[in-house]
Amino acid sequence: MSIVKPSTLPGFMELLPEDQILFNKMRDIIRENFEKHGFLPIDTPIIEKSEVLLAKGGGETEKQIYRFEKGSTDMSLRFDLTVPLARYTVQHFNDLSFPFKRYAIGKVYRGEKAQKGRFREFYQCDIDTIGNGELSLVNDAEFPVVIYHTFKDLGFSEFTIHINNRKILKGFFSSLGIEDSTDALRAVDKLDKIGEEEVKKELVTTGTTEEAAEKIIDFIKIDGSIDEIIKALNELGIEDEIFKEGLDEITQVVGYVRDFGIDENCFDIDLKIARGLDYYTGTVYETTLDNYPEIGSVCSGGRYENLASNYTDMILPGVGLSIGLSRLFYQLNEAKIIKSEKKSLIDLLIIPMDECISEGIKLVSELRENGIRVDIYTEFAKLKKKFKYADQTQVPYVIVVGENEIKNRAYSLKNMITGEQVDISFDDLVQKFKK
Amino acid sequence: MSIVKPSTLPGFMELLPEDQILFNKMRDIIRENFEKHGFLPIDTPIIEKSEVLLAKGGGETEKQIYRFEKGSTDMSLRFDLTVPLARYTVQHFNDLSFPFKRYAIGKVYRGEKAQKGRFREFYQCDIDTIGNGELSLVNDAEFPVVIYHTFKDLGFSEFTIHINNRKILKGFFSSLGIEDSTDALRAVDKLDKIGEEEVKKELVTTGTTEEAAEKIIDFIKIDGSIDEIIKALNELGIEDEIFKEGLDEITQVVGYVRDFGIDENCFDIDLKIARGLDYYTGTVYETTLDNYPEIGSVCSGGRYENLASNYTDMILPGVGLSIGLSRLFYQLNEAKIIKSEKKSLIDLLIIPMDECISEGIKLVSELRENGIRVDIYTEFAKLKKKFKYADQTQVPYVIVVGENEIKNRAYSLKNMITGEQVDISFDDLVQKFKK
Repeated sequence: MSIVKPSTLPGFMELLPEDQILFNKMRDIIRENFEKHGFLPIDTPIIEKSEVLLAKGGGETEKQIYRFEKGSTDMSLRFDLTVPLARYTVQHFNDLSFPFKRYAIGKVYRGEKAQKGRFREFYQCDIDTIGNGELSLVNDAEFPVVIYHTFKDLGFSEFTIHINNRKILKGFFSSLGIEDSTDALRAVDKLDKIGEEEVKKELVTTGTTEEAAEKIIDFIKIDGSIDEIIKALNELGIEDEIFKEGLDEITQVVGYVRDFGIDENCFDIDLKIARGLDYYTGTVYETTLDNYPEIGSVCSGGRYENLASNYTDMILPGVGLSIGLSRLFYQLNEAKIIKSEKKSLIDLLIIPMDECISEGIKLVSELRENGIRVDIYTEFAKLKKKFKYADQTQVPYVIVVGENEIKNRAYSLKNMITGEQVDISFDDLVQKFKK
Repeated sequence: MSIVKPSTLPGFMELLPEDQILFNKMRDIIRENFEKHGFLPIDTPIIEKSEVLLAKGGGETEKQIYRFEKGSTDMSLRFDLTVPLARYTVQHFNDLSFPFKRYAIGKVYRGEKAQKGRFREFYQCDIDTIGNGELSLVNDAEFPVVIYHTFKDLGFSEFTIHINNRKILKGFFSSLGIEDSTDALRAVDKLDKIGEEEVKKELVTTGTTEEAAEKIIDFIKIDGSIDEIIKALNELGIEDEIFKEGLDEITQVVGYVRDFGIDENCFDIDLKIARGLDYYTGTVYETTLDNYPEIGSVCSGGRYENLASNYTDMILPGVGLSIGLSRLFYQLNEAKIIKSEKKSLIDLLIIPMDECISEGIKLVSELRENGIRVDIYTEFAKLKKKFKYADQTQVPYVIVVGENEIKNRAYSLKNMITGEQVDISFDDLVQKFKK
């Protein structure tokens, strides 16, 4: 039999157990936060009918799809969790209660050009709240609250949730005579990446006058505290209805966010935030880590006025946000902002002398019955090899079980970090390691 | 825009949130048991290079693979978690400690003929312990222990873990002059499905003499307690070396299982268990629910002498087992052995009167700060509609917040199951709902 060199495809993340433990811990924290804010789990298939998944059609995304046939069925791997949510919501409409708050954590697939920090398979962690016909702005305010608690629990203290409302931008553009705001929104969204001059150039290239472009740049640079920005926007005296609607919405949303009582230092209004995606229609969010702006937005989302127009005539407005966990993990790890803390999920390893393996098993079993995370070294080997395993796995404590230990039911507990050994009884062991 | 009817592909399970909550609970219990027995998490890509994934080649499995090209890359979806484990173990060999105990919980793909209870996308929950060169029989004994605790925690009290050793069967066949035992093992494995007469027929068809077939049937029907079966096997006086090795192994494994101290009623020796798969070479397991034999084995596995011969010359023996969670969930649900218990992950819903929404938000926020799983109804609507939502979502408790409640900071807590209402202060609310 010939031997094949084992390797994974480029752009597919695979972690060692110690990193996987950390990754899972982050995923658990995100899930726990989603659940405690009332979001319900769903888990849609990774493969969908191409006809359904690509109902919207067109765009950059379609080129990146993993699409194939099996038998006569044309199928595709999901490229996000939002399109499956739209399909799910309509398909199961009669069994759901609205507002429908759902979370989904799962892998999605995009055949992007392989590059550092970009993955072709990656985890998204999404929450969305879907209304039946209408959905109040309280929901727009709840999303920053979920982000806030999630990132706090992930261990970050300094981050900013930037809030904007696309109606403010659209309405402002309209007041300048720009009726189709698509190009202008895209250009503005790039400000942090390409700078003021390039944005201005792009605006002019796509048909904006030099004068209007200047005004747009001045507008999105309006800065200050939340109340200062709202005041400044009001004082512009813009009579455009969409602008006024957006300003009214953001004022309400900020009010509700304050009712939720999160730290004011962790959110602001940022008129530069436009989000590239077409389907956002109101509130939009991005989140940045204050000390690592180069990472870009770690959690983004917004309000859309109709989730599922490809699948139904019903109007289903929603608010959603997504954490790109694989990318976030990779970036935090690369920047050494996070670091795997443990290689082992157990607290104690029993190393039996070869002739005492049965007694070692019995001890492990009794300790496990008492709720202790303990394992046993199972191989027959020299003590040196057994301790090498303990070292490698970084288990925090070790007990060697030989005839004396069995006879006296008293043990010597070795702290593998300090090297310190203490005598300990079974009962004290249980006390020490019980959660 | 034309509307596409939303639907999933046949053979792809998708659950409503209440079933998903139950499914996730089972998955959490399985994960928790894997972790507390010292298994480490890994999460391999769902897509692998076809060349790597199908290195073994041939067989029924290959026809079922979802295989496709993107660009010039030939790729396939994983059909189990064992082949990726083999690839992983060799690829990351130098970063792993042996015995390497890993668990993996994830989706796998098989384009099987669609039929009831068979899925094309399904979760497997696997544990394997891999040795470097050798691996003691203590490991073979630990797997029934993990199954035992997992199924107990899943809420089952009556199940049986059947243990056998393929060397016993192979050696016995050999003593009858059957040197290639593949066909005979496959025939024997079908006993429970097709019955004694059919197995005998199949044995004879594949070249076994009528007389040997009779002997095989008598052999696999040897029954009794564990000690009685071991005694009976010893008394057969079979001199075949493989047979003796198998008998010695099962005797040791049973001894270690007893050291681990699990309930004797939950495991037995069953000489009929052969497992269809070629690669098992020693201990094999199947697990059945005593009151639901029609479900078949809910958890199977065994010992293999070499995990990764397609990827390396190193000898990596292992023991593994797998729970087919999607299928298990489907069957238990169909047979009404399990039933979704809750549609909501929160304990309490705050329903604010329309004019008190800000105060409602503040209350929710304070309660959440105290660790309570509480949500708020966010829409402006008649009270009736708000209570309909509470009914539908089956949240256990509701508090309506109006001007009186705000003024007095005293609430009326409604039990949505009994309809009972009690007056309660903020502090008592916290006491009641705090975990």
